[in-house]
Amino acid sequence: MEIYLDNSATTRICEKASGKMVHVINKIYGNPSSLHSKGLEAEHEITHARKAVSEVLGVSPAEIYFTSGGTEANNLAVFGAARAKKRLGNKIVTTAAEHSSVFESCKALEAEGFEIEYISPDEDGNISPEKFSDAIDEKTILVSVMMVNNETGAVFPAEKIKGIIQKNSSPALFHCDAVQAFGKIPVKPYKLGCDLLTVSSHKIHGPKGSGALFVKKGTHIKPILYGGEQEKKIRPGTEALPLICGFGAAAEDIGIIAKNLSEVSKLRDHAVSRLSNIEGITFNSPQDSLPYIINISALGIRSETMLHFLEKKDIYISSGSACSKGKKSHVLSAMGLSSGRIDSALRISFSKYSTKEEIDILADALKEGLETLVRARS
Amino acid sequence: MEIYLDNSATTRICEKASGKMVHVINKIYGNPSSLHSKGLEAEHEITHARKAVSEVLGVSPAEIYFTSGGTEANNLAVFGAARAKKRLGNKIVTTAAEHSSVFESCKALEAEGFEIEYISPDEDGNISPEKFSDAIDEKTILVSVMMVNNETGAVFPAEKIKGIIQKNSSPALFHCDAVQAFGKIPVKPYKLGCDLLTVSSHKIHGPKGSGALFVKKGTHIKPILYGGEQEKKIRPGTEALPLICGFGAAAEDIGIIAKNLSEVSKLRDHAVSRLSNIEGITFNSPQDSLPYIINISALGIRSETMLHFLEKKDIYISSGSACSKGKKSHVLSAMGLSSGRIDSALRISFSKYSTKEEIDILADALKEGLETLVRARS
Repeated sequence: MEIYLDNSATTRICEKASGKMVHVINKIYGNPSSLHSKGLEAEHEITHARKAVSEVLGVSPAEIYFTSGGTEANNLAVFGAARAKKRLGNKIVTTAAEHSSVFESCKALEAEGFEIEYISPDEDGNISPEKFSDAIDEKTILVSVMMVNNETGAVFPAEKIKGIIQKNSSPALFHCDAVQAFGKIPVKPYKLGCDLLTVSSHKIHGPKGSGALFVKKGTHIKPILYGGEQEKKIRPGTEALPLICGFGAAAEDIGIIAKNLSEVSKLRDHAVSRLSNIEGITFNSPQDSLPYIINISALGIRSETMLHFLEKKDIYISSGSACSKGKKSHVLSAMGLSSGRIDSALRISFSKYSTKEEIDILADALKEGLETLVRARS
Repeated sequence: MEIYLDNSATTRICEKASGKMVHVINKIYGNPSSLHSKGLEAEHEITHARKAVSEVLGVSPAEIYFTSGGTEANNLAVFGAARAKKRLGNKIVTTAAEHSSVFESCKALEAEGFEIEYISPDEDGNISPEKFSDAIDEKTILVSVMMVNNETGAVFPAEKIKGIIQKNSSPALFHCDAVQAFGKIPVKPYKLGCDLLTVSSHKIHGPKGSGALFVKKGTHIKPILYGGEQEKKIRPGTEALPLICGFGAAAEDIGIIAKNLSEVSKLRDHAVSRLSNIEGITFNSPQDSLPYIINISALGIRSETMLHFLEKKDIYISSGSACSKGKKSHVLSAMGLSSGRIDSALRISFSKYSTKEEIDILADALKEGLETLVRARS
């Protein structure tokens, strides 16, 4: 039995999305920009998908811009906002625990002369809103804060940012990377008060290679790609029809967020209970983290060693973000954890399809791994 | 019977590509960056596709960088080269007939302070190599010239550029947009002497939303997206697995280029012969253009009017580039054609699956359209 508990890295494509994709691949081949009916037919499919994604967010379809994924949407938000707003100031406030697509974009802007303030999480993985109050000022043109951290599941105080921006008389746009939150907790840009918000398809059982940026009506950002008239010139290029349609279908298939969250919370509680009883395991996720992610350390065993041990049992988890390809976690480093904990970190991430049985098998395997692998070393 | 002769806008997905995509959608779901075997399995699929694309080009797989399509690959080439080379000079040489993704990127660089020389085609659509000799100088850091024009099929003198760059002691990188040439005539970057070359999936019966940039070994360009470790950090973001695999399968399915070209040349000759006999039709493509594209004007009938007339007969062609969504053609304008010819322009574009019968039906319909629609106006 294959046990895949690496759903924050990527998910299986759900049946609704695969069915839609197969239909589009076999039947719909026009270029959505073509003026004839083959083009219109393709454009209707994009319109349908755009509506599906917008409805989950509670925004207008006209505010959704499809991209090639979360990475491109985050780049578009960060570069697009910084370049559109640079006359108003030079400072960007973000966290030291953002996904690499925000973090590295900020580093590139730093090299261009922008001042970036990276706010570190506390040792428990959380960030207090006060840190943002201290950082956001009248020269700050962009605040980029993720809703849920991809490695620890920590829920960052995104809902406080807009108020702080206003209170501190800052002209900043607020961008929220909601990739790990979308479909798992309510993500409502207008309630959140953000101007820009990133979502991704392949974390919600849609295909890899598709994402979207919400751009609040009236918000001006510069594109990062230039070309045709697609996506109102904010994101030119022939639309990735099969992927966008799959993303739309996956968005329609999210189901009732509260119900899924409640089920996954029970799974998480069960997992915490099982893992707490294993000697050598410590928890790196905050207690109030998103239940879909548990970050632990199996002290004394390097992450890769444990991953390969589990893999032989057909169990799949990760050491952290997949995008970092096994490099030392900048998130856990920013939390100030010891290198012993960082080097032995493991991320277990659930989907709405995960089961209690899978957790039991994982817990047994981790216990065996800790006993066997430590014994092998001594 | 549906007659689709708009293959330069986009193509139907071939069976080999759709079969591969359906397999990947249903069976392969790991994140190619994940360290466990689910990730490796996905990575193997990407490796296979990369090899397939590289083999058609006769280059190393390590020189192929997958992107979200031709538009992104062209942007990466133009911005990536300009930003990497800006210490050596300030000038970029291109043509006034490039695809909008090169053209608009150059416009954006012009706004940043780069000097861009846009070389216009002659009235027949061709460009003589001498124009490039005059333009490329010691301050030129990038020359971007398409291999085949997307609206007229004109074959630009891409194979002369490298020699001119060397003769004129220019430090320029040479980028070739080969989107309309790839799979139709031999495209060999090393023979061509280019440093960067763009190809796209959906023009060769692969899915929309995938493309690649060839970056010659040792050539340094700046990325336009920042994030994870994918595509050696030149193009981060979780790989669009279904599309990349479909692209690879479509590349494997190209077949014998010379044989397809020979067949399509016969179709083109037949079409030219049929269309020449229709009063009111003039040819905008050069006589020695790529046989896959014929650009004509149906004098006196606006392009949209004719397109809709044909569409009612289930015949699909276009007025020009799909990406321009019916805006006045900048290519035909650069050729200096009269507005009467530009406003009535039609692009007929074949694929290796096109037939003589389809051309006969199109020719009959164009004749009827010219008679009926002109009569309706008088």
